[in-house]
Formats: sequence, structure tokens, C-alpha cells
Amino acid sequence: MSTRISELGEFGLIRRLTEDIELTNESTIKGVGDDAAVIDFKDKQTLVTTDLLLEGVHFDLVYTPLKHLGYKAAVVNFSDIYAMNGRPTQIVVSIGISQRMSVESVEAIYDGILLACERYGVDLVGGDTSSSLTGLTISITCLGEVEKEKVVCRSGAKENDLICVSGNLGAAYMGLQLLEREKAVFLNTEEKNRVQPDFATHDYILERQLKPEARKDIIEVLRKNDILPTSMIDVSDGLSSELLHICHASKKGCKVYEENIPIDYQTAKMAEEFNMNLTTAALNGGEDYELLFTVPLEKYELVKVLEEVRIIGHITSESEGTSLITRDGQSFELKAQGWNGFENSKK
Amino acid sequence: MSTRISELGEFGLIRRLTEDIELTNESTIKGVGDDAAVIDFKDKQTLVTTDLLLEGVHFDLVYTPLKHLGYKAAVVNFSDIYAMNGRPTQIVVSIGISQRMSVESVEAIYDGILLACERYGVDLVGGDTSSSLTGLTISITCLGEVEKEKVVCRSGAKENDLICVSGNLGAAYMGLQLLEREKAVFLNTEEKNRVQPDFATHDYILERQLKPEARKDIIEVLRKNDILPTSMIDVSDGLSSELLHICHASKKGCKVYEENIPIDYQTAKMAEEFNMNLTTAALNGGEDYELLFTVPLEKYELVKVLEEVRIIGHITSESEGTSLITRDGQSFELKAQGWNGFENSKK
Repeated sequence: MSTRISELGEFGLIRRLTEDIELTNESTIKGVGDDAAVIDFKDKQTLVTTDLLLEGVHFDLVYTPLKHLGYKAAVVNFSDIYAMNGRPTQIVVSIGISQRMSVESVEAIYDGILLACERYGVDLVGGDTSSSLTGLTISITCLGEVEKEKVVCRSGAKENDLICVSGNLGAAYMGLQLLEREKAVFLNTEEKNRVQPDFATHDYILERQLKPEARKDIIEVLRKNDILPTSMIDVSDGLSSELLHICHASKKGCKVYEENIPIDYQTAKMAEEFNMNLTTAALNGGEDYELLFTVPLEKYELVKVLEEVRIIGHITSESEGTSLITRDGQSFELKAQGWNGFENSKK
Repeated sequence: MSTRISELGEFGLIRRLTEDIELTNESTIKGVGDDAAVIDFKDKQTLVTTDLLLEGVHFDLVYTPLKHLGYKAAVVNFSDIYAMNGRPTQIVVSIGISQRMSVESVEAIYDGILLACERYGVDLVGGDTSSSLTGLTISITCLGEVEKEKVVCRSGAKENDLICVSGNLGAAYMGLQLLEREKAVFLNTEEKNRVQPDFATHDYILERQLKPEARKDIIEVLRKNDILPTSMIDVSDGLSSELLHICHASKKGCKVYEENIPIDYQTAKMAEEFNMNLTTAALNGGEDYELLFTVPLEKYELVKVLEEVRIIGHITSESEGTSLITRDGQSFELKAQGWNGFENSKK
């Protein structure tokens, strides 16, 4: 089915997109439908973060399902709130809709956003909807809450702290490489000879790219184990870049061990197929949305047994620099080659 | 001077744009530079609103100075917070920068945003910056604070309440008509014959379109006079449209008197020049950012003496409908012909 947006008009479209929204957070006093939403965080502090996704820069509609896109647009914001050790509670969503999109397409994006909201316990409380003369634009701002004494910033890392990372790295990046390759093959094949790309056995890295999750579970596990990180950041631009952010903000150095960097089997296999250096992919591949954090050395026994958490190195004094120790014991200075939206394409 | 953005890179650009930002609100605990900003509203409630501005839909760079554009992008958000009877306190700013823009152009937008922040006492606490493959995109989300018992929604209008509006209406719309006309003349003139458009004596309506203000002063005056509106909305889509929002949300009707609608002399003169119906312009012209609100009848003596506030009618029962009473005593049903972004151009 394909309904033209002009049939509904702006107010009609907004009504259709928002009429089924249920509010679940106690802090949400008033959601969609007034000049502003009203929220009551009581004695908690408020966190706010925002992400802008632009067609052609952050996503390619050739291979990105709209529902996944909506899901991802919400989740990348949640990830930033978790990275402050908070809990995401509300989002506002602005969408600039390109002319060729139908009402059903916009609904698919909203379905994805609302699915993410449901899974993470977040309320959609407002937004702005407009036509766009160019591509699709999605801008989401997320509010979250955190107890005052539990906020974790990038700047709190101390010498000898353990550097930990959740999950595994480089998977989203290898998923993107695969999607870009298949797109190129598809576009370079005459129409009559085209076949659907074979994505079997690559489901994990594709999902990491197209429908990532935020590590709510890690925040909950740390809390349950009474581990308060000294610093934390989410891995959106690549491990190197994020480590440098922590070291820079904390005025410290670091030593990270190549052999400890967690990498999934599918990521490794795909890197081999592409003849890429696996460590480079894990260090610089963006969009993993894992959590990178530091904990005091005395938490070692507690941390080392946590599932889905890997200790990859430790914090040093600033003068020792930021280094990667390779498998054969060589030391290299870490460089941020992370995502750069101004180079005009995904890495 | 024209510096290419790629010379600075994303992090360099962000540093340049944000290094001089000063935080002035007590509630702002942590601004730019981490995964999320941290805010402490203590016992106040939080308001959140967002606006998306897209090139070609909401603004035309042919006649919109970038600094004005930044100023307006911020102010339209502040206006939404005032319309809840709140005080804007923080914004996050996302910008998608088109390829042809220099660092200095982006700085001009930021200068405008920061000027608005300074004038209205708001802190810029975060954002997202990216290149855009298409046009310029500005998405701003604003947080504000309000005492719990002072929130004013659209839904609180009662029968016999007085309907009031601040300032005057239709000016921004007539300013836009003038700009569009001069643009057409300019583009249809051979280059050698071109002269700068003559905007003398039109400064007021141009400023209303290009650099509007939010009615902070009205909120302060109402507070000082101990007048708590029963409902309120800001006039962004046109008086008719906003009145219908209030009546719909409050389940009430209204009677508005044409002769009471405040219109500036320049607006009237321009409407005459364009051979347009003045009342139509005032009822349906968008982007005035005046405040439309209702107050209990017993506040009549207090309200009627307020400068910059005009009583234009009163709230009725729902069954009486929503009507405009013309100068000659005829009654017409109000219709929302306000701004519709999906009609693909400014009205």
C-alpha cells in the first residue's frame, strides 16, 4: 500500500504516527500534542544527547530497511545515555521526509523507533515532521536520568585503572563492507542477470551494522555488581578514537593489548575475505555501540568474571602516551582514524 | 576568508565552534564534550521541544543571512518553551552542513545561535555535526524549566475566558512575500541590469521574517501581574490554526473579532501593495511567534491595560463552534489554512 503524504497533510500524518503511543515512564507528565513535553525527573539529574542521521552520509536506503533505520536512530541515542551510566527515558524525533516517500514508509521508520522505545523502556514525547526537498533526515534527541552521584564522564580515568570493553569490536564495520560490496556488485550487473545477494552466514555482522543494540545489559550488570566505572564512553567512532577521548579528557595515557581485543568469528572471517587487517578494523571500525570503560584495579576479580566484558589494558600516566602493544610485543601509538563524516562517505 | 571544513575535520570544527561557549544556568552541570550533557532541574519540571529547519523548505539561503538563520532556529524553540509558561535553559544543536559551506559559514550560523542563547539566557550544551550531501539542515532541541503548578497547556481554556494575543500578526508572512518577490525580480533580471532590492521602509516586516523574537517579555509581564493563563500556544502556523488547536484540546469553541486582531502599519501597507486580504494574512500567515493565550474573565481589568497584549475574543462552549466575527457583524467558521510543510513551499 502506498498513501501519499499530501493526502493526510502534516497534522494528519502526525496524528497517524503518534496516536498509538503509550507512555510508560513515571517521569513523563505530558507527551506529544503541546508546544513542549513536560517531564519530572524529581531528584534525579537529566542527561541529554542528540544524533543526526542524513541520507547518503549515515545510511544508504539501497540496503537499509526503514524499520531498522528507525530502530538504529533511536538506539544510538540510548547508547550515549548508557555511556553516562544513565537510563534513557524520553526521546523527541524530527523527520525530514523526502518527496518519494509514502505514509507507509514513514510509518515503517516510526515502527522501528517505537520498537526500540518499547524494548528500552523509553517514551516518545514529541518531535517535528516536515517534507524535505532532498534526502531523508532523522534527528533524535534523547533525555535520560541518573542519580547525581552515579554520573560517569569521560574524564575520570585514574592511573592503573583497568580498561574494559563490552561485546566485540569491528563487526558493524565489516557488515558495512559486505553491504557496500554487494551493492556494487548489484549495480554493476545487468538487470536480467541480477540475483539477490547471498547474505547467509553473515547474519551477525549485518545485524550489527543495520540493527545495533545499546548495552543496557552491561550497565545493569555493573550496577548489580556494585562496580562504578571511573570513566565511560560508547564506541561509535572506533576503539582508538574513543580511548583517546578518555585519555585526553582524563589527562592520562594507556596501554592496550592487541591480543585482548574481542573480535567475533564472523568479523575475522570477513576481514580475511576482504584481505583487511583485523586489528585495524577492530580499532577503527565505527558503530559498534559497545561500552568502553575504566574501573579501579581493585575491581579486577569482580570484572574478570563478567560475561561480555573484556579487560583490554590499563591506564597509565599521561607522559607514557597512548599505546597499542601488538601480539609480538611491539608498541605503537594509537591514532584516531575513526569515522569522519566530513570525508563524505563511510570509511 | 574561507576555510574548507576538511582542513579542520569533524573534531576540529566542533572544537572551534564550541570552545568559547560559556555556561550561565545553575541547572547546567556539564555541557559540550561528553556522550551527553548533565542537567539538574532540582524541584522544577523539565520541558522539551524540538524544531527541524531544512534548506528549501523552511529557509532560502538566497535571502537569509546565516547569522539570522541561526538566531531564528534557536528562537523558534525558545518560543515553544515560553508557550508552556516555562523558561528555556539549554539547547542541543545538530547541523548537517552542505558541501559548499566554509568553516566561516558554519561559524556564522553558530554566532547567531549563540547570540540568541546569550539574549535569552540559554546554554548550548551539546549537538551533532555532520556533512550533508544535500542541503543545510539545522535541528535544535530545547530544554526548559517550569514550576510544577505553573505549566500552561493548550487544553485548559474555559468558557468565557478572554482570548489574548501579543504583539501583532501577519508581519512575518508579509516579510516573506516581499523577499520572494524581490528574489523573483532579481532572478528574472539580466545580470548587468541588476540592482540591489530596495528594502527601505520595510525593515520591520523583514526583521519579523528573518530574525523573529520569542515573547519572553510577555511571560514575565504576566507573571509580574500574577496572571496565569488557562491555556497558551505560540503562533507559528497562523492565528486560525493555533486557535483551533486550543479549542480542540480544550473541547471548547471561540468567537474572535476581526476588528480586534492587531496588525502593524507596515504589514497593512504591504498587503495593500500585494492586493491581499489583510485579515487573511493575519489569520493564516505563519511564523509570527507571538503568544496566543486565554485568561479568566475576572482578569479583564488587569489584562486590558497590558502593553503589547490585545484581547481579540472569548472562549465559548464547543457547540457554538469556532467563529470569526467580521467588522460588518458576519460570522465565519475559522479554518486552519496555516503553514503546511507538505505543500512543498512556503505559502
